[in-house]
Amino acid sequence: MNSAALTAPDLEDLIRTGVPMVGNMGVRVQHVEAGQVRLALPRHDDFVRPGGTIGGPVMFALADVALYGAVLSLIGRVELAVTTSMTINFLRRPPMRGLLAEGRILKMGQRLAYGEVLLFSEEDPQPIAHATGTYSIPPHPRVEAPPPAPFAAP
Amino acid sequence: MNSAALTAPDLEDLIRTGVPMVGNMGVRVQHVEAGQVRLALPRHDDFVRPGGTIGGPVMFALADVALYGAVLSLIGRVELAVTTSMTINFLRRPPMRGLLAEGRILKMGQRLAYGEVLLFSEEDPQPIAHATGTYSIPPHPRVEAPPPAPFAAP
Amino acid sequence: MNSAALTAPDLEDLIRTGVPMVGNMGVRVQHVEAGQVRLALPRHDDFVRPGGTIGGPVMFALADVALYGAVLSLIGRVELAVTTSMTINFLRRPPMRGLLAEGRILKMGQRLAYGEVLLFSEEDPQPIAHATGTYSIPPHPRVEAPPPAPFAAP
Amino acid sequence: MNSAALTAPDLEDLIRTGVPMVGNMGVRVQHVEAGQVRLALPRHDDFVRPGGTIGGPVMFALADVALYGAVLSLIGRVELAVTTSMTINFLRRPPMRGLLAEGRILKMGQRLAYGEVLLFSEEDPQPIAHATGTYSIPPHPRVEAPPPAPFAAP
Repeated sequence: MNSAALTAPDLEDLIRTGVPMVGNMGVRVQHVEAGQVRLALPRHDDFVRPGGTIGGPVMFALADVALYGAVLSLIGRVELAVTTSMTINFLRRPPMRGLLAEGRILKMGQRLAYGEVLLFSEEDPQPIAHATGTYSIPPHPRVEAPPPAPFAAP
Repeated sequence: MNSAALTAPDLEDLIRTGVPMVGNMGVRVQHVEAGQVRLALPRHDDFVRPGGTIGGPVMFALADVALYGAVLSLIGRVELAVTTSMTINFLRRPPMRGLLAEGRILKMGQRLAYGEVLLFSEEDPQPIAHATGTYSIPPHPRVEAPPPAPFAAP
Repeated sequence: MNSAALTAPDLEDLIRTGVPMVGNMGVRVQHVEAGQVRLALPRHDDFVRPGGTIGGPVMFALADVALYGAVLSLIGRVELAVTTSMTINFLRRPPMRGLLAEGRILKMGQRLAYGEVLLFSEEDPQPIAHATGTYSIPPHPRVEAPPPAPFAAP
Repeated sequence: MNSAALTAPDLEDLIRTGVPMVGNMGVRVQHVEAGQVRLALPRHDDFVRPGGTIGGPVMFALADVALYGAVLSLIGRVELAVTTSMTINFLRRPPMRGLLAEGRILKMGQRLAYGEVLLFSEEDPQPIAHATGTYSIPPHPRVEAPPPAPFAAP
């Protein structure tokens, strides 16, 4: 495990103060290492959608902030990282439970970082959504994301 | 202009009651015709992001509901239309002004509808974001979206 | 209509020599103006897929080169424009006819250009595919794409 | 490791006969298990692009067929699986070497399958491209893709 450029409490604090709309949803940072984060979003009645499921914008916001955290895990605290694009696929209708997000960076360039996020419903190993996205980042010391593990066990 | 399967006030009401998280943001329906809608989102301090701009999840939510409205403009009120995927590209950093969304359907299939949304900042003709997305829709009478106008003036 | 930074014959020549895999497919440039192009791809037996339709990679390649042309219509001949991402949605199964592509730029930034492409089958106004994509471009004089026309007729 | 619904030689044969444009590029199936495949594409001078790199359409085609293989690894040989959408991000400019593709399914629904593909250049653990896509599939016995391993080593 590679050491991250900021700690979990620092990242959680940064999300709360810097991205208030999402920070106010109560996001917790469970784990940070270089190029990877795991976040938790406790269930909250405001997130409900007709049919008793969780709204797409909530999942989008969680995926976005997971990617943001994964970027910062490599380059540390920067003010001006902004999302330039995001693609999200909704795979299963989540029940009204808390959510988990696993994000990782697949390419950390000089100006753009690209990564992916898997979203889960608590206690279910099948993903409820998958997102990919690109962040525009300010100049920073060169750093590489660790190469992704193969999908298949060897 | 083709007539829509529901009126602007009906759609606005449906958004407010059926998609409360977005409806509560104050979305107005400015125009509806078959396969197309135009929505307005008045500025609101809660949407702010560091740097005085509008958060990505707000723009995602507006694009999502514009696509939802464009779907309903063709098949009328249905309860179970759900987003299956959405891609959003952020093109320009919007100032803290109201937003406009133009959505249209490019393919209305039996089970899936696909369309695109342009987001604008009030009084600026250059788009601030562009989204494409797919909705899963319940069985409905067959209907086609009007073919898109060519990009270029003839 | 704004004048383009290169002519249709110049663009066609550039595609043939610079992107041989696609140029060799026989792409014709029908129209170029600032920020917009229309290309034609005559039918060819090699493009067939089981079921008598046209393969996805052929449509991807055509959309890619249409976006490339739309970029060059604004900044002129550059050698190093490269695709950084592309999203393509296949909307209708095309018959074995020639294809048309309409591409336009929605944002021409200093380093990234973003646009969309509609693909058609000859003589059918309903699109068969829709693509959006981003090109990384070398430094160039500042230029803006013309703002997109509203979807709806006024 | 879960057993696949068809063997590597069967899949390779199916690609060659059923998707000739890609099959003719010389794709090899290195590994198949339930929900996952690894393909190899030997280097070939036709794939070159100006600058000595590999063309986007070649990478798109390889990603597409990797996803197709991953679908078939779960439901066996079906004739009518068609790509409905694909998003590809180009991460690093590949040298003129052979390519590898790792594809896996993240959701196998009754009508739609969704998955992702990582593309590599031979002997380099950093990915050169990442794709996500959706296939429309015919009715089939219900089967689930294995849940994805966590990104981070435990």
